[in-house]
Amino acid sequence: MLVPLSRNDLGALAGKSKRRILVLGATGSIGSSTLDIIRSNPDKFEVVGLVAGSKVGDLIKLADEFRPAYLPEVDIVLASMVGVVGLKPVLRALESGKCVALANKESLVAGGSLVQKALVKGKGSILPVDSEHSALFQALQGENPRDIKRLILTASGGPFLNRTRDSLKNISPEEAVKHPRWNMGPKISIDSATMFNKALEVIEAHWLYGMTESKIHVVIHPQSIIHSLIEYVDGSQMAQLSYPDMKGPISYALGYPDYRVAGAVRSLDLEDLGALNFIKLDPERFPAIGLARDCINYGGNASLVLNSANEAAVSLFMERRIDFSEIESVVAEAVSKLQGPEPSSFEDLQHIDQESREFVKRIVQL
Amino acid sequence: MLVPLSRNDLGALAGKSKRRILVLGATGSIGSSTLDIIRSNPDKFEVVGLVAGSKVGDLIKLADEFRPAYLPEVDIVLASMVGVVGLKPVLRALESGKCVALANKESLVAGGSLVQKALVKGKGSILPVDSEHSALFQALQGENPRDIKRLILTASGGPFLNRTRDSLKNISPEEAVKHPRWNMGPKISIDSATMFNKALEVIEAHWLYGMTESKIHVVIHPQSIIHSLIEYVDGSQMAQLSYPDMKGPISYALGYPDYRVAGAVRSLDLEDLGALNFIKLDPERFPAIGLARDCINYGGNASLVLNSANEAAVSLFMERRIDFSEIESVVAEAVSKLQGPEPSSFEDLQHIDQESREFVKRIVQL
Repeated sequence: MLVPLSRNDLGALAGKSKRRILVLGATGSIGSSTLDIIRSNPDKFEVVGLVAGSKVGDLIKLADEFRPAYLPEVDIVLASMVGVVGLKPVLRALESGKCVALANKESLVAGGSLVQKALVKGKGSILPVDSEHSALFQALQGENPRDIKRLILTASGGPFLNRTRDSLKNISPEEAVKHPRWNMGPKISIDSATMFNKALEVIEAHWLYGMTESKIHVVIHPQSIIHSLIEYVDGSQMAQLSYPDMKGPISYALGYPDYRVAGAVRSLDLEDLGALNFIKLDPERFPAIGLARDCINYGGNASLVLNSANEAAVSLFMERRIDFSEIESVVAEAVSKLQGPEPSSFEDLQHIDQESREFVKRIVQL
Repeated sequence: MLVPLSRNDLGALAGKSKRRILVLGATGSIGSSTLDIIRSNPDKFEVVGLVAGSKVGDLIKLADEFRPAYLPEVDIVLASMVGVVGLKPVLRALESGKCVALANKESLVAGGSLVQKALVKGKGSILPVDSEHSALFQALQGENPRDIKRLILTASGGPFLNRTRDSLKNISPEEAVKHPRWNMGPKISIDSATMFNKALEVIEAHWLYGMTESKIHVVIHPQSIIHSLIEYVDGSQMAQLSYPDMKGPISYALGYPDYRVAGAVRSLDLEDLGALNFIKLDPERFPAIGLARDCINYGGNASLVLNSANEAAVSLFMERRIDFSEIESVVAEAVSKLQGPEPSSFEDLQHIDQESREFVKRIVQL
């Protein structure tokens, strides 16, 4: 497992009264929620650095508000950049022994073995920030990892859950970016519609919790209230529930293992909801999940290729150069044609990443 | 809190390879489930004593099978007798520093302060066995108790959930003992129909988790799959789910804190269930819950009177001497008329118990 199993795994972080946070991806959706939490809890958290790849104007305003220190000691690196670009600073942070609150799922999907090596080398730590992986982490607290029977990831099913595959052809980028439950960026919204989002999470869960794909189950839960569950060997399942709001998992990572941050998400009213529903995932309707399972079993560069090919295919879809329903087939072709050994370095990984993107563009032009 | 908060609170029990169990109430429903678990796990558990108040023939057969040792060292006392009669051995076990797996809810409801004193005096420990309190205990693992916002007890609503109060008059004992989810004894089944069962559990949760009644919420959940939840200050709720089977909570207590017992309950299939429903509790439809809240706020002997009066009223209902719908009013009258200080000893408690029962019989004869 890559997640900490006791307070001791957190080093000096546990028990620290005020935590110094470096926010990578400060102007994005996760970055904004993180800064909201820090703004409301100045006694607990302090911003010591803000990094963003775009929206420079916003970044300057935030720098003016939070006035991050120069050359600071960092306790937690909140890594919320989107895409493979987020991997490099994650590796750096882990190599220098920092605690990384990981919202950049591509880090583990594309560079799982590199992250693992950096973690071991630098004695850093990883706290999951994805809502599903945070839920699993919360459901693991106080338990013996040997007692785990399976992880159960919940999936909203995205905006097109009730549409047949045939009807997906003419979906426009504008339709695909509207997610019914979570307010997210366009890339993640499209990944939610294809379920590549869940496919990446299956791979991430494999790395974080050291599970084979056969022990990772996916269930469709349209309300997105149960964020995931762990089933234990005694037939018991432990679940984490809340209204869908990323301030929940972000604040959990920022305060772990000492406290939960009061008021992060409004109180959940189960009577008001009335029902929580669960639907069996149809693997033919959502081939991305099966593809992720194949990638875990292949090992090597497969998950990296899947991720890069998917990023390229989503861009092509946004540019209206491929149909919505072609995203999956393009990715599947890239994974099957570009199989190879795992990346030996970040530069090697960048090379495979580039190669995968070019492969996708080429087959689309054919 | 009366429940242990760390391994250290369990003394020599934690880490012990084979646990010696004394089963009180061996021929009842909980006792039978306990012996099933022990039978399937001879490497983990050993029966060192069997006690039953009835079914002597069954007891002899069990003694012949398990061959309990004479004058043994006991690790865990499984206390599953029904009624106030179960309190005395619980006090004895706690005073001599034993770990009590507590299924006898009357112990805490009737004698909460005596149990607390015995626990402090003997440095024993209590592990909850009721499915709701076990769920709360499981949802508390690895958490900081200061982060608790409220406990959420789930209630099936019993067999008459969808009937109006007016229609309850002519319910027969035969109808009332049929519970839709759990296979239980007649007393508990009737308590489930009146929700006195849940009322007793609210009082028990008050003692076990040190919560005021305002922090204990009850929600109707007809499927009895989520056995209870804890809401934390960050808006997150942790829940324990399983098919309703007492082997779950019993085995959790027997193996705590070292392991969960494999195969105790069959694997939960959320897709097969399809939905989990939640309904707001109508306090006028189920006055027992409000009465329990009053008893917690009154303190003194109120919960003891409630429990004894309810036992007496259920007996009168089984003898067809009062209507189903009169159980609640009779108990409410006893609580309001017999209010007094908390019992100072077990003998004092027995006296108040007797007085409450006689009071109920008297008002029925009027």
